[in-house]
Amino acid sequence: MEVRPPKPREVIAIYPGTFDLLTHGHLDIIRRAAVMFGRLIVGVARNDKKAPFFTPEERVEMLREAVQDLPTVDVDSFEGLTVDFAQRVGASVIVRGLRAVSDFEFELQMALMNKHLHANIETLFMMPSPEYLYVSSSRLRELACFGRDIEEFVPPIVAKMMRERFSRQHA
Amino acid sequence: MEVRPPKPREVIAIYPGTFDLLTHGHLDIIRRAAVMFGRLIVGVARNDKKAPFFTPEERVEMLREAVQDLPTVDVDSFEGLTVDFAQRVGASVIVRGLRAVSDFEFELQMALMNKHLHANIETLFMMPSPEYLYVSSSRLRELACFGRDIEEFVPPIVAKMMRERFSRQHA
Amino acid sequence: MEVRPPKPREVIAIYPGTFDLLTHGHLDIIRRAAVMFGRLIVGVARNDKKAPFFTPEERVEMLREAVQDLPTVDVDSFEGLTVDFAQRVGASVIVRGLRAVSDFEFELQMALMNKHLHANIETLFMMPSPEYLYVSSSRLRELACFGRDIEEFVPPIVAKMMRERFSRQHA
Amino acid sequence: MEVRPPKPREVIAIYPGTFDLLTHGHLDIIRRAAVMFGRLIVGVARNDKKAPFFTPEERVEMLREAVQDLPTVDVDSFEGLTVDFAQRVGASVIVRGLRAVSDFEFELQMALMNKHLHANIETLFMMPSPEYLYVSSSRLRELACFGRDIEEFVPPIVAKMMRERFSRQHA
Amino acid sequence: MEVRPPKPREVIAIYPGTFDLLTHGHLDIIRRAAVMFGRLIVGVARNDKKAPFFTPEERVEMLREAVQDLPTVDVDSFEGLTVDFAQRVGASVIVRGLRAVSDFEFELQMALMNKHLHANIETLFMMPSPEYLYVSSSRLRELACFGRDIEEFVPPIVAKMMRERFSRQHA
Amino acid sequence: MEVRPPKPREVIAIYPGTFDLLTHGHLDIIRRAAVMFGRLIVGVARNDKKAPFFTPEERVEMLREAVQDLPTVDVDSFEGLTVDFAQRVGASVIVRGLRAVSDFEFELQMALMNKHLHANIETLFMMPSPEYLYVSSSRLRELACFGRDIEEFVPPIVAKMMRERFSRQHA
Repeated sequence: MEVRPPKPREVIAIYPGTFDLLTHGHLDIIRRAAVMFGRLIVGVARNDKKAPFFTPEERVEMLREAVQDLPTVDVDSFEGLTVDFAQRVGASVIVRGLRAVSDFEFELQMALMNKHLHANIETLFMMPSPEYLYVSSSRLRELACFGRDIEEFVPPIVAKMMRERFSRQHA
Repeated sequence: MEVRPPKPREVIAIYPGTFDLLTHGHLDIIRRAAVMFGRLIVGVARNDKKAPFFTPEERVEMLREAVQDLPTVDVDSFEGLTVDFAQRVGASVIVRGLRAVSDFEFELQMALMNKHLHANIETLFMMPSPEYLYVSSSRLRELACFGRDIEEFVPPIVAKMMRERFSRQHA
Repeated sequence: MEVRPPKPREVIAIYPGTFDLLTHGHLDIIRRAAVMFGRLIVGVARNDKKAPFFTPEERVEMLREAVQDLPTVDVDSFEGLTVDFAQRVGASVIVRGLRAVSDFEFELQMALMNKHLHANIETLFMMPSPEYLYVSSSRLRELACFGRDIEEFVPPIVAKMMRERFSRQHA
Repeated sequence: MEVRPPKPREVIAIYPGTFDLLTHGHLDIIRRAAVMFGRLIVGVARNDKKAPFFTPEERVEMLREAVQDLPTVDVDSFEGLTVDFAQRVGASVIVRGLRAVSDFEFELQMALMNKHLHANIETLFMMPSPEYLYVSSSRLRELACFGRDIEEFVPPIVAKMMRERFSRQHA
Repeated sequence: MEVRPPKPREVIAIYPGTFDLLTHGHLDIIRRAAVMFGRLIVGVARNDKKAPFFTPEERVEMLREAVQDLPTVDVDSFEGLTVDFAQRVGASVIVRGLRAVSDFEFELQMALMNKHLHANIETLFMMPSPEYLYVSSSRLRELACFGRDIEEFVPPIVAKMMRERFSRQHA
Repeated sequence: MEVRPPKPREVIAIYPGTFDLLTHGHLDIIRRAAVMFGRLIVGVARNDKKAPFFTPEERVEMLREAVQDLPTVDVDSFEGLTVDFAQRVGASVIVRGLRAVSDFEFELQMALMNKHLHANIETLFMMPSPEYLYVSSSRLRELACFGRDIEEFVPPIVAKMMRERFSRQHA
């Protein structure tokens, strides 16, 4: 089979999340997704109900530093529905990591609803790399709360800001 | 946030499968995936262990007819590992439909192994449209074997070739 | 085989739930269950821990309006265990919708415990229609909270009462 | 709430299966389902691909003996689709046991397809009693093949016929 | 094969949990695990976020009474990470009950993280006995809150202390 | 808390399997389990229905070479039920790897049945190390059948015997 030269594509994708505790697992997905799309916009959801470590602005700042070597990746925060944010920035793809069976059904429901709300926006799922399968934000929060060092699981900027945050709290 | 114009991307994706019974569910994935990548190559796996209705050549022929309105979609058959086929045709993405939790773990295992074999090839998962959630090839095979009309679930060319096949068998 | 005329059955079933956001998915189950049993009692659980949109009385009112064309369906509210409510109204069947694998195990545990508490009461599970697979109350709550119109997913009376509720809040 | 006297219902249900190795778990479902419907027809599927121990006729015979104390239960065999058998005998309900998460998705798919083929036929799921959760036919087949006595898991007529079958084979 | 006499092993295992509502299911795991290891330390986690019925001290007291006939079982409470508690008491094994698929993935993640934190500590999983499959603490809490007697599911000391607690509350 | 010196335990465990394609994942479980029990007997099931690469004798030979540095590990083959083999060699523990949710329910059923057959024998489950999560025997068989080198996934003796086997076949 002769493969004709593919026509240029300008697909914009978003990778939404809370990113209150940005991990190497998140960055792994960002790096792998960035290769596949013309532009990848990491979207920090402002409407997190759980008590966060960091403000949305701090989370955007940490993400920006962590992805500064990736020229096609942007970081922004948003309020409201993820699918509306995608629409607003002209994205036709929502990228989601899928770590576990228990995520699967929630994500399926979400993807079907999003498709219903904006038929032109697709949700694509990526599996984590095996070394990040057990590194979830909630597990790391727990470690951090019990005074465990979590620097090996997060980028340097996050480790630095957590040290500042916790030393301030305990000062 | 100002979104810079995305740089053109030439991502080639494959959508592999047996396609012994091509359904509207498969075509739904093909159409939705075609929009996201520069080129989509539908790969018919020749090494199917189950007794197929159609030869790989017939399956390629039916697929070609069904996707003829999609200029960026090609159809080919392959032998061997899917990830090696992807590598051969220069694809950096493998597209898989993910219908059920029970698929999820097999697919996760597969994706991790493929990533290990060719680090530069990603597997992306798409959820089916709700109307195709229950239209699996195996369910349709069963219907067809019990003499049920399955034309509403498959493209016209498949319906036509099945009628010919079955009438020949019963002649 | 000659099928003897079935003997009349007077089976009473209950369909319990919170129904804080009554959807077409709930009504679909109610309509389908109503056909199978002599009487179906929709039971509104009063003891909901989550902050509800509507009082139990309002929920009963909305349900009554939505099922008024179904002569064998009654609506009532209850406090305490579902299985005790079933016992109290003389029901021998509890009907539950089963949308996802993640519901399954909770429901299995619940059904086994209920069977243990009242051996003469059965739990029966129904699958949702495919068009309602992704319309969960929690998803709709989220949409409503972000100002999305959810009228297409709920009966008119619910849409009307939500408009009143939200306009009152924002007045 | 005043519960009006329920109107008599004449619901016919089927309980389909292979029943090559009829267990107490099957009979448990039959007994519990028989109470809920006007008539319950146990349907022995003739088209089993796995090498069965017993012919469909033998299976019908064993079932008939095992349910002879249940006046509203009939036993018959059928060929073709379960949902067509249901239609043929005038049933509006298909009863299925649901033992495990891994059954769930297959059954959901099946129920949605059946609903599509005959909109007036419902599939209802029942959970097994806890003591039968681990008594599957395939597990028992394995025990029997390794010469283990399985009499405690099956009705007397099945134990008797298995003894005859195996002694004949080894004579 | 000649099985050489096994060399004595001094394996210490912990069985961690909240144990706010100690059930026969917990005791079943404790008894079965105690047989397999040189010493089993039941560890009461002090850092429970949910509003507990009993203080950690009361929970330790109830556990001690319930296991007093098991000479190789100790009870203690701990703060912080389970795996750190294991390390502190010289345990090389963490025993966990695994009741449901929905537990599985959380436990897998936990076990992988624990292994990463202390490579010399293993997590071992045990399945519940069938009669305890549906007896979860959360289900029993619910029963107790609705005034249901739960004495059959818990050891006598727990039943006694719950009666005292509830009569005091309602006095 | 003062931890009394644990009393010596002489627990014998078995690790049963087909081991037609012995992987590093199997050896990882063997090494980790060997530390926890007085003796670990790896049991090669002779009654494999799938067409194996190697005879039971060859599989025992490869396992023996692979575990020769583990003084408390023995290797043997067996016919019949696993739980009967455990009983025969005086084992009170069956060790099983648990890789996926889809294994979980089969294993739960199996463990409950085994417990019923021999109440004094426990089944214990271990999670795989993350690097072996995707290295299943069936995946490796597939790779080998398509001519892929699988040496990195298996111990040297298996690689050597596979080379001999395949070169003999193609000579």
